[in-house]
Amino acid sequence: MFDELSIVNQLSDAFPQYIGDDAAILPIDAEHSWVISKDLLIEDIHFRARYQTAESLAHKALHVNLSDIAAMGVQPEYALLGISIPPQHDAYAKQFLSEFCAACQREKVILIGGDTTPAIERLSLSVTVMGKAKNHQVKTRNQAKPGDVLCVAGNIGDAHLGFTALENNTPGLETFKKVFLNPIARVDEGVWLGEQMGVTAMMDLSDGLAIDIPKLCRASNVSAELDLSSIEKTENFMNACQQLGLDPEEAQRNGGEDYSLLLAIDAACIADIQTQFKMTFGYSFKCIGRIILESPVRYSFQKHA
Amino acid sequence: MFDELSIVNQLSDAFPQYIGDDAAILPIDAEHSWVISKDLLIEDIHFRARYQTAESLAHKALHVNLSDIAAMGVQPEYALLGISIPPQHDAYAKQFLSEFCAACQREKVILIGGDTTPAIERLSLSVTVMGKAKNHQVKTRNQAKPGDVLCVAGNIGDAHLGFTALENNTPGLETFKKVFLNPIARVDEGVWLGEQMGVTAMMDLSDGLAIDIPKLCRASNVSAELDLSSIEKTENFMNACQQLGLDPEEAQRNGGEDYSLLLAIDAACIADIQTQFKMTFGYSFKCIGRIILESPVRYSFQKHA
Repeated sequence: MFDELSIVNQLSDAFPQYIGDDAAILPIDAEHSWVISKDLLIEDIHFRARYQTAESLAHKALHVNLSDIAAMGVQPEYALLGISIPPQHDAYAKQFLSEFCAACQREKVILIGGDTTPAIERLSLSVTVMGKAKNHQVKTRNQAKPGDVLCVAGNIGDAHLGFTALENNTPGLETFKKVFLNPIARVDEGVWLGEQMGVTAMMDLSDGLAIDIPKLCRASNVSAELDLSSIEKTENFMNACQQLGLDPEEAQRNGGEDYSLLLAIDAACIADIQTQFKMTFGYSFKCIGRIILESPVRYSFQKHA
Repeated sequence: MFDELSIVNQLSDAFPQYIGDDAAILPIDAEHSWVISKDLLIEDIHFRARYQTAESLAHKALHVNLSDIAAMGVQPEYALLGISIPPQHDAYAKQFLSEFCAACQREKVILIGGDTTPAIERLSLSVTVMGKAKNHQVKTRNQAKPGDVLCVAGNIGDAHLGFTALENNTPGLETFKKVFLNPIARVDEGVWLGEQMGVTAMMDLSDGLAIDIPKLCRASNVSAELDLSSIEKTENFMNACQQLGLDPEEAQRNGGEDYSLLLAIDAACIADIQTQFKMTFGYSFKCIGRIILESPVRYSFQKHA
């Protein structure tokens, strides 16, 4: 059975210094590093041509990689694209390529190369994105400390509602479908947060809180205490959950693909960073729990009435 | 219909400064650049699990990328691996991963990251390899000049014989099968040739002379005159061609996957470089033709009796 964690463990045993975060860090000199991500997008695993237009796939293929880099506090600069095209997707792939170029240009990312091959059944994509950073601004997921506040910048669970609606052919719910199909990497926020000393750890929320928070905790050798009731549920969100037959808290806990930023912030800095963040970006990040010290690592998802 | 050339043209129109060679060049400072390759290997397009063991696939997936970097005169240093695993290949993929780590360690390449996902039908791989180079040693395919001698370091056509034997279930011919299944990137030769001022252009032979020489010519805006009769055909090669029903010259002209080095060398330097190359590596590269000036570009494959 496919098990990403055991694969990552196997690879990190062989190359202990480098693997762990969604993007790799490659030292350039004493002060600078390259940060490099690589994400695969496989048809009918990560997307369906039935409801994902070539334009939105191009947008998403780029943004999920931008998100990996931005979540380490780094400005994405360069991309490489690998694409493997089955015969029935020739026109779709052609449009994808123009749209991918356009998306790179919009995000001021330079496409420096790649590879194109035929495929038998399914379209697959491999995108690599790189950015150069000053070492002090690179955030990882392994420096969270007990007492830090756990925060999320961006939506939680919305993408899962969109995904469910698309998979079930549910009409309407366009806002949620758009969040899933066209996630917007929080690049400016990531770069800004990378510069804040009080941010101790950062990653993006791609697999959902229930998977991503444990990842951050394992990497930092800490635990976390969450208060899911503190996460706002709008009327739209509640109505959509009802329409789709989803439990709202479960959607927020397990839903993936939001590409929001998950942060651990030193409690002494939280008020200051919160104020400045809101002034800069016009919205607030949510505080959803705190880092606690426990060994062995244990996670408690507290439900408040 | 899948057409790599038109895709590359489309991408280079959007990003003119970067795409063209098998690896991208990313300037670091006035004197240094990163050279970065990305190759996809898709099951039943580039390999078959039926006759490619996980060990030889790991070797090949790394070496085809090492070859891209070495063919630009650069020492490979870092790799990223993307792997997409269908349920029936779980054990095969697991072994592939150990062997890929081992292959990286043998080649002193550090695996810095990657991505792993499930797949529906076929195993697919995406490998990115990077190396840092002094700008003066980076060779491209666009600087060949009329009068240069066209040379090949390594076998020509052997891999195609091996591929044909494997596809047809022909017994024996192990030497040729091995060349196809376990190609060895000519890293030391590539790095050494990168340092020779007289080498004006270099690339690896992955698609065969008939495709790769025109690529070099188009990039350099020149043409080439080849003498295929000058390429040695050993008794083993001739016998294998007969056994497989292949025309020997056609196998040498059209056969791909040799991962030999294709070079254009200034005619004034050829004797010197040839002598030193043989002293250093214990074998000679072959001179197979010369670069001529013609516009529009035209290719002549002269057959001598």
